[in-house]
Amino acid sequence: MANVEELKKKISELEAKLAAAQGNSGPVRQKIDVMSSEVVDSNPYSRLMALKRMGIVDNYEKIRELSVAIVGVGGVGSVTAEMLTRCGIGKLILFDYDKVELANMNRLFFQPHQAGLSKVDAAAGTLQSINPDVAIDAYNYNITTVDNFQKFCDTISTGSLTGGPVDLVLSCVDNFEARMAINTACNELNQRWFESGVSENAVSGHIQFIIPGETACFACAPPLVVASKIDEKTLKKEGVCAASLPTTMGIVAGFLVQNTLKYLLNFGNVSHYLGYSALTDFFPTMSLKPNPQCDDSYCRRRQTEFKAKPVVELATEVKEDDTPIHADNEWGISLVDENSPEEETSNLKLAEGVEVAYSIPVDNNTPETSSGGAVAASELSLEELMQQMKSM
Amino acid sequence: MANVEELKKKISELEAKLAAAQGNSGPVRQKIDVMSSEVVDSNPYSRLMALKRMGIVDNYEKIRELSVAIVGVGGVGSVTAEMLTRCGIGKLILFDYDKVELANMNRLFFQPHQAGLSKVDAAAGTLQSINPDVAIDAYNYNITTVDNFQKFCDTISTGSLTGGPVDLVLSCVDNFEARMAINTACNELNQRWFESGVSENAVSGHIQFIIPGETACFACAPPLVVASKIDEKTLKKEGVCAASLPTTMGIVAGFLVQNTLKYLLNFGNVSHYLGYSALTDFFPTMSLKPNPQCDDSYCRRRQTEFKAKPVVELATEVKEDDTPIHADNEWGISLVDENSPEEETSNLKLAEGVEVAYSIPVDNNTPETSSGGAVAASELSLEELMQQMKSM
Repeated sequence: MANVEELKKKISELEAKLAAAQGNSGPVRQKIDVMSSEVVDSNPYSRLMALKRMGIVDNYEKIRELSVAIVGVGGVGSVTAEMLTRCGIGKLILFDYDKVELANMNRLFFQPHQAGLSKVDAAAGTLQSINPDVAIDAYNYNITTVDNFQKFCDTISTGSLTGGPVDLVLSCVDNFEARMAINTACNELNQRWFESGVSENAVSGHIQFIIPGETACFACAPPLVVASKIDEKTLKKEGVCAASLPTTMGIVAGFLVQNTLKYLLNFGNVSHYLGYSALTDFFPTMSLKPNPQCDDSYCRRRQTEFKAKPVVELATEVKEDDTPIHADNEWGISLVDENSPEEETSNLKLAEGVEVAYSIPVDNNTPETSSGGAVAASELSLEELMQQMKSM
Repeated sequence: MANVEELKKKISELEAKLAAAQGNSGPVRQKIDVMSSEVVDSNPYSRLMALKRMGIVDNYEKIRELSVAIVGVGGVGSVTAEMLTRCGIGKLILFDYDKVELANMNRLFFQPHQAGLSKVDAAAGTLQSINPDVAIDAYNYNITTVDNFQKFCDTISTGSLTGGPVDLVLSCVDNFEARMAINTACNELNQRWFESGVSENAVSGHIQFIIPGETACFACAPPLVVASKIDEKTLKKEGVCAASLPTTMGIVAGFLVQNTLKYLLNFGNVSHYLGYSALTDFFPTMSLKPNPQCDDSYCRRRQTEFKAKPVVELATEVKEDDTPIHADNEWGISLVDENSPEEETSNLKLAEGVEVAYSIPVDNNTPETSSGGAVAASELSLEELMQQMKSM
């Protein structure tokens, strides 16, 4: 017969095991006041602080002062949040309104025992147990409704560790409306952000850096054809869903956070657009200038403000030091400039190996999102364009 | 006063919570006999089976019959294992002999509460809770000792679900000796494998597909300079460690598993070599033919066998269907062949944008791993080469 003392001992053991398994117990990983370079097994920051000794980053510990908002905590956003958490970002602000499902288990991050929890709460719990030094705010709402949009704008404009605007917004959403909402907010608030996306056939993706007034915003060159507001949820109801792979989503999250780190910590060159085509391992890069006839009035205002500033290179905040750009180039590769088709596309500045698939509209009508009629297509049939745009 | 019944109830509640938190309880996620395409929230395979309807993969469920060995379960190997587990691979065989430390927390996968566990056991536990359908074998030993090397060879040659050789070996190790051990084993066993690596400054990496006799093996073109057998462990003793980032390691793991899926499931084009330079977002690809004077006698034997076969393209097992190679190319990009410097490098077949940094040795002496003296360098000084090789 079990006596009370034995049962109490068993309870105490189970509580300790549970605390360890949940990873949110005190003793597992205490908060750390100051990032140290000390090379000991118990220092979670030694491999990051080593970036200073390696000559990659001047001031890695600055990351603890910085705040990043992540909109969408799915296949890309959750991995993005985990990478920034492990890098020791000062503060993360998460937005999503979806629940974890077993159908999400083909992507990294969430685990079966979290099924049914809200994505932001499940994510915040895991992230906090991975790194208790990161401040994490989680918002479980849809940013595209009128009320929530205003709350979203307020949060990103006052959400930093010092009460000011966040340092960067990362869009990891899966639909057109949410991207347009983020675009509208960031143009109005003059907030820099990264767009990201993965195609519904799971084998391509991209990231895009948007500096209001300096680079094309999401409304400057909208998708030619948007499948009449269909998102993943709508598709599911018909017994059809988009394909996804942990590889493609992990790679896009990796590109997103790598360029976020380069931007925030001032090293390397931040890509304005980086694509990934998995079938052929092809990675197009380019820069897009803003459209002077953009539908978004705040975009046009930011363009005017930018033009009024002294002329500087697009990427002035990116350090260009005196070391050769390919100091770590193991293959002796030299980049060759190709001729850009400037004549046809005066407001597109294309990088190597890329040419335009279509012309940007120059009229100022509201684009009809369910057809390509407002846009002058070049070289491709409407069917081909539909095919391309379906996978955006 | 607590009575026995109350205490027993408390114990039962705690046990249920612990099982859920550990993610290894029965009810959280039951095994699934047959992969289904059904689009319901409870189906962890719906988004993968959708690859069939999207026209990307003909026979996705074949993945359940396939076995992959992963050598090294660190920053790259653990994420590689998680991606394959979430994709529903039939069997994973893990090799490592290291323990989880808080110093590993700047990379994805392991969590603070696992500190102190062996990497293979910690990984196997997490992976099994993510997907109980995957068979997982974990081996906690160093494959480079004489006894263990034989055990390693036996395991990969009989480790498949049907008792035959595994379908692929993935090298995710961090040192020269382990890579050479895998190379020796795979040449002898005629086993296809992928090499992977991340530089010690954390901002570049690569994957390489090695088909014995058909593509260059690791000994065909060894690193010019290897830092006299220093590995991470040795460096740590001096209070110095390599830098690492979750981004670079996650991206390299993503490339590795994406090309593994393309190879195993017969879609797209498998890259023979894919590099990643994070500072500039540059991604060199190339193909390397084997060195007829390779030091590895089994490599030379496989080359002879391959030459005796009817001449076929290197990548015959990769499906080349009739659809355009850039069907999902959103930018209308056309690839342009560049002239390869064939004269200087008869056994290197370089892809676009890449040129050789050095010549492959043609003499048959054992290369001196601690100096570049045996190699004719072209265009680069010894100091530059040392700098390049240090970061391999």
